[in-house]
Amino acid sequence: MSLFGASPARPGAFAPEFAASAPGIGPAANIETTSLAPLLTPRSVAIVGASGTPGKIGAIPVAMLREYGFPGAVFPVNPKAEEISGYRAVPDIAAIPEPVDLAIVAIPAAGVLHALEACAARGTRAAVVFSSGFAEIGADGLAAQAAMADLARRTGMRILGPNTLGIANIDAGLVASFCPFFRPRFPTGGAIGLVSQSGAFGGYVANLAQDRGLSFSCWITTGNEVDVDVADGIAYLAEDPRTRVILVYMEGARSGPRLIAALEQARAAGKPVIALKVGRTAIGAEAAASHTASLAGSDAVYDAVLAQYGAYRARSVAEWFELGYAYAVGRSPKNKTIGLITVSGGVGVMMADEAVSGGLDPAPLGPEAQDRIRAIVPFAGTRNPVDVTGQMIGDLGRFAEMVEVVLAEHDYGSIVCFNAGAGHTDESGLRIQKVWQQVRDRHPDVYIAISGAVTPAVRRAYEACGCLVFTEPDSAVRTAAIMARLSTSPDLRAPPPAMAQLPLPDTVLDERGALRLLGMAGLPVPEARAAADPEAAVQAAREIGFPVVVKILSPDILHKTDMGGVALDLHSEQAVRDAAARILAAGRAHAPDARIEGCLVAPMIDTRDGVETILGVQVDPIFGPIVMFGLGGILVELLQDVALRRAPFGPAEAIDMIRQIRGAALLDGVRGRPPADLEALAQALSDLSRFAAAHADRIESLDINPFLVRPRGAGAIALDAVLTLRAGDPS
Amino acid sequence: MSLFGASPARPGAFAPEFAASAPGIGPAANIETTSLAPLLTPRSVAIVGASGTPGKIGAIPVAMLREYGFPGAVFPVNPKAEEISGYRAVPDIAAIPEPVDLAIVAIPAAGVLHALEACAARGTRAAVVFSSGFAEIGADGLAAQAAMADLARRTGMRILGPNTLGIANIDAGLVASFCPFFRPRFPTGGAIGLVSQSGAFGGYVANLAQDRGLSFSCWITTGNEVDVDVADGIAYLAEDPRTRVILVYMEGARSGPRLIAALEQARAAGKPVIALKVGRTAIGAEAAASHTASLAGSDAVYDAVLAQYGAYRARSVAEWFELGYAYAVGRSPKNKTIGLITVSGGVGVMMADEAVSGGLDPAPLGPEAQDRIRAIVPFAGTRNPVDVTGQMIGDLGRFAEMVEVVLAEHDYGSIVCFNAGAGHTDESGLRIQKVWQQVRDRHPDVYIAISGAVTPAVRRAYEACGCLVFTEPDSAVRTAAIMARLSTSPDLRAPPPAMAQLPLPDTVLDERGALRLLGMAGLPVPEARAAADPEAAVQAAREIGFPVVVKILSPDILHKTDMGGVALDLHSEQAVRDAAARILAAGRAHAPDARIEGCLVAPMIDTRDGVETILGVQVDPIFGPIVMFGLGGILVELLQDVALRRAPFGPAEAIDMIRQIRGAALLDGVRGRPPADLEALAQALSDLSRFAAAHADRIESLDINPFLVRPRGAGAIALDAVLTLRAGDPS
Repeated sequence: MSLFGASPARPGAFAPEFAASAPGIGPAANIETTSLAPLLTPRSVAIVGASGTPGKIGAIPVAMLREYGFPGAVFPVNPKAEEISGYRAVPDIAAIPEPVDLAIVAIPAAGVLHALEACAARGTRAAVVFSSGFAEIGADGLAAQAAMADLARRTGMRILGPNTLGIANIDAGLVASFCPFFRPRFPTGGAIGLVSQSGAFGGYVANLAQDRGLSFSCWITTGNEVDVDVADGIAYLAEDPRTRVILVYMEGARSGPRLIAALEQARAAGKPVIALKVGRTAIGAEAAASHTASLAGSDAVYDAVLAQYGAYRARSVAEWFELGYAYAVGRSPKNKTIGLITVSGGVGVMMADEAVSGGLDPAPLGPEAQDRIRAIVPFAGTRNPVDVTGQMIGDLGRFAEMVEVVLAEHDYGSIVCFNAGAGHTDESGLRIQKVWQQVRDRHPDVYIAISGAVTPAVRRAYEACGCLVFTEPDSAVRTAAIMARLSTSPDLRAPPPAMAQLPLPDTVLDERGALRLLGMAGLPVPEARAAADPEAAVQAAREIGFPVVVKILSPDILHKTDMGGVALDLHSEQAVRDAAARILAAGRAHAPDARIEGCLVAPMIDTRDGVETILGVQVDPIFGPIVMFGLGGILVELLQDVALRRAPFGPAEAIDMIRQIRGAALLDGVRGRPPADLEALAQALSDLSRFAAAHADRIESLDINPFLVRPRGAGAIALDAVLTLRAGDPS
Repeated sequence: MSLFGASPARPGAFAPEFAASAPGIGPAANIETTSLAPLLTPRSVAIVGASGTPGKIGAIPVAMLREYGFPGAVFPVNPKAEEISGYRAVPDIAAIPEPVDLAIVAIPAAGVLHALEACAARGTRAAVVFSSGFAEIGADGLAAQAAMADLARRTGMRILGPNTLGIANIDAGLVASFCPFFRPRFPTGGAIGLVSQSGAFGGYVANLAQDRGLSFSCWITTGNEVDVDVADGIAYLAEDPRTRVILVYMEGARSGPRLIAALEQARAAGKPVIALKVGRTAIGAEAAASHTASLAGSDAVYDAVLAQYGAYRARSVAEWFELGYAYAVGRSPKNKTIGLITVSGGVGVMMADEAVSGGLDPAPLGPEAQDRIRAIVPFAGTRNPVDVTGQMIGDLGRFAEMVEVVLAEHDYGSIVCFNAGAGHTDESGLRIQKVWQQVRDRHPDVYIAISGAVTPAVRRAYEACGCLVFTEPDSAVRTAAIMARLSTSPDLRAPPPAMAQLPLPDTVLDERGALRLLGMAGLPVPEARAAADPEAAVQAAREIGFPVVVKILSPDILHKTDMGGVALDLHSEQAVRDAAARILAAGRAHAPDARIEGCLVAPMIDTRDGVETILGVQVDPIFGPIVMFGLGGILVELLQDVALRRAPFGPAEAIDMIRQIRGAALLDGVRGRPPADLEALAQALSDLSRFAAAHADRIESLDINPFLVRPRGAGAIALDAVLTLRAGDPS
């Protein structure tokens, strides 16, 4: 058992036997949280392996229950002790005089399963298992975890861990943890809910909170997750009335649908979820054959899913924690305008930079307000940022007047003020704080942040009235920008109707089959004909009408262009005949073992008459069917400028997805090009997502490349597609 | 006069009368720094406007000289006082008993010029002018500044300010500032040199340094910069042996060549320059007509120039200050490999993410070293990150062994260790620190950073042996990544030979003229002929050979494609005749006032036979001629994926410039395309830079678009160009 619950990895959490049996695609039901009450608000606690030796893993939680004034019954289980931390000890689990809500298990791994069985038999409703030495040590540990998971399912006893640093519910006086950072005592009334898969990281965050004078509503570390997982923690905190923000640290979700359900619960409750997900650069081990697979590595899917379901994925530990601080202590901006006040012109520019690049609007003051500012301080900067100049220090009345001019002018969602060194003593700082106290009284909902030198007493005074204090001025603005984005982003979800199952063959589909299937799914596809040999190709071209394109038809050749398998813009029968012969020969030379079924003949569509895009589907093992969108051509590979979204989704969400790529403006028409038919593209993406959701169990990967989006009103069309299927379910 | 020297703006610093008369293009001479010695290491100091009233602007520096133990003579100038802070006062400047090195001027603006004249007459060699109320209040203030600048030139007395918060040289006992954050006393031996244009920001940084227990070698705030500017400060610090890192805060440079000369001096001295330049999003007021002008907004030029001359532009205040800390206290990584040690598997992944995305190489341990790690702790993570697991806390000997295995395995440039909560008490923390102390003794040059909970005493112990302490583990790795990039980036400068002046006309050049000129400058251009009317166009096409392109020939029409002024791929005389007529009509209809000189007929070059790029030149008012490179087509506008570089430069630098764009891989050949002729492109960029440098006084802007880069060995060719000239110098 390790002191910090750290382990080399958390294999048990992601091992197949614990994963959902198939990637879910439908909306998961809400995660029920009443069964978590015995874990997080127990009426009584037993400590199995309790110890009286200070510093021991079995001693710390007993001492903590005492120090935090846990109001319920506490039963240390220890055959050799009379009393521990003032609680009367019992010799074994069977001797606990009443069924307890929560058992803390702090014994070596070998005895854990037996102890848990005994607890369940004694009517215990939840258990926290500190013990390590399970999945992280290999097959034996995995088997023990499987037995533990089975016990939880069988008895209904909720199990947290093993290999967890435990939980805390400060207001309830419950610290079921051996983390050293619960001393000194955290104050009650904390608004940050933490869920961390890593105990070591959870402990580190507790230490950060101590340093910053912050407290938690609940602090939850989930460890190896045989039963209670990160989704349970999020769902519980979503419903916990004291929690204002949910900080999540995760390495991976055990079940995608459960994580999504929890995120939905948090969104419905209006609780921001700020996620720190590690594994950004692990793009996946195998070089996948299709575009989609190589672009939509699973971390990219996490990235997309977190955003799609309203969570924010922090880019650094500092940003993650700043957001926790800002939501817990401050106010969330209700719009994207920001008023900037500064004693330094240059720092005003810096804050404006940060505002604009974060998507905030530093809306300028009107001419009358600017005149009023000038009337107060002649050489002030008046537009926004308002530069009150160093003069402010000498005359706080004038400073207060200027601040009120700013706040009266616009309904600014955020106000950030850079003080530099003004107010660096308790006395001067508290005088300036009084100004903001009055602003707060009149404007209870505005995000207010101060940056500059403050003493601890001044900081506490600001925070007591919901004003944030940041060391760095740019960080104060950046935090406002992220919060404003989260609070103003509309909920676009409008689940589209489910699609009926289409008949899928058992094998890989060639281009023609793939396009035909997509046509049945409602996507726009060209008429195209198969031809076994050059003469049949000529006949097909005659029927379709010139000009045509001819492509090799083979389920085994994915990148046709690379091997000379495509001929474009053929205007005559002879050209078609020659091209078909050349292509078939090239195919045989390139891939002697490939099944070559002939050629495909299709109308030549001028790709200059529109924007080439790429649409794709990949089925993620955790989150199920994911749709990809990007600009076509080689630039999609070069810049990886793609957007992902979990299927299914409606056209409004598809528009949002299209707007996420950096090159989206290309579709609006630039340099004389007409705007593209966004509606047709969005409809196709939505239909593709319905197709993907209906056939998630069969799709291995699907690429539509290019998907040509024509000028507005002229629609769009899929010009090529590769669909790889999994074997169908034999049942 | 404001307490913090803050002003709404710093107009004087950038007003034309203080700017270098013309943007320099040649290498500037080194900035001489001996004249700054009286300012920063004076033997004697007078304080004009000295006061005995604590807190007054004229009182603080006198008190500071006393508190910091300034060893030289100090003369407070005050007609009403006998003695101030223990120094005997003199009634006026003329009464100062000896010529002093430095005068501190702390009197209202109206008397400053007179006082400075008196100081100069008394033999004073340098002055610090706190007084505000100059350029920041308008024309009168600007005139006073001009007189001050003239005085400095005339007398050789160096003037810092006005509107400055002053300077400090801690080791010399000199604090010539009224900043409140020099109390408590900064320790001697500081290694951070600060140059800040803003006094308010400089004061804020002094406060940050106090909070972090850091000190400065020199602390310099330059204010309105009538004489001493940010370049002087950088050059001085480059030569100051105590300074290990130069932190620069700037709003803009008074002279580009001087800034560059200072950066070169710092690079030659091996001193990293970390710049915080505000104004990122101020793209420039006017919507410029050419691509280059709109893309190369002046902040983008700062961005490019800082990088080109070896400075690092920080992305946030926190990053800027962390780098100052790391260079001052730690070691700069000598290569890009990094060893990661962690007590948490997930945090190890996070650190590896950060390493990879920052360009570091977390080179894995070899199999034998991994076996050795496993022999020490069976379930440790062994590859890199090495997860020592929570076990490390119980047995520090084993931890030390694992650390040595890591350090013995590779010549890692950096080592970062995440401790989480281990070592959170003085006792446990100092025990762990001892391990790192021993590592430091054996590996004096490695970047070592610890992240986790530490007490102040433990932090001091780490820092005393050159190990850094970071709150956030990702920040520890990110800092290493930036430092490694700076320490390992090669110096590619090899100034190309100067180009002889070419004969430039007095007017705007049409496409033909522009291409002809570029051909004379050595760039590859197609043969092209002018034709006044459709019949002449047909004749030209006959001579050139079909197919051809026909374009409108007008100095007044920049974007020809937009108005139908281009016809491509004309295969017959009739096609040329029709196209020319249509184009001329379109030109007259589109721009009735434009000078239309006919058509240009050129060979049709298939742009699919290569990669379309765009080359440009813009002459920046501060930095002179800047060359731009990007991928051609509309994506350059859409993604603004361009690289800038100050002219002139050689082909090796051009290759570096090409590699800076995100889409550079397109030139390496993707999906079956051959790699492009990078050498030809680099040579063209270098030749263009020589042309730009030779004609910087005449070029308004130059766009070459497209510049087609053909497959390797096949060269490149400019297909279209627009050159706008300024009027020639009449002299």
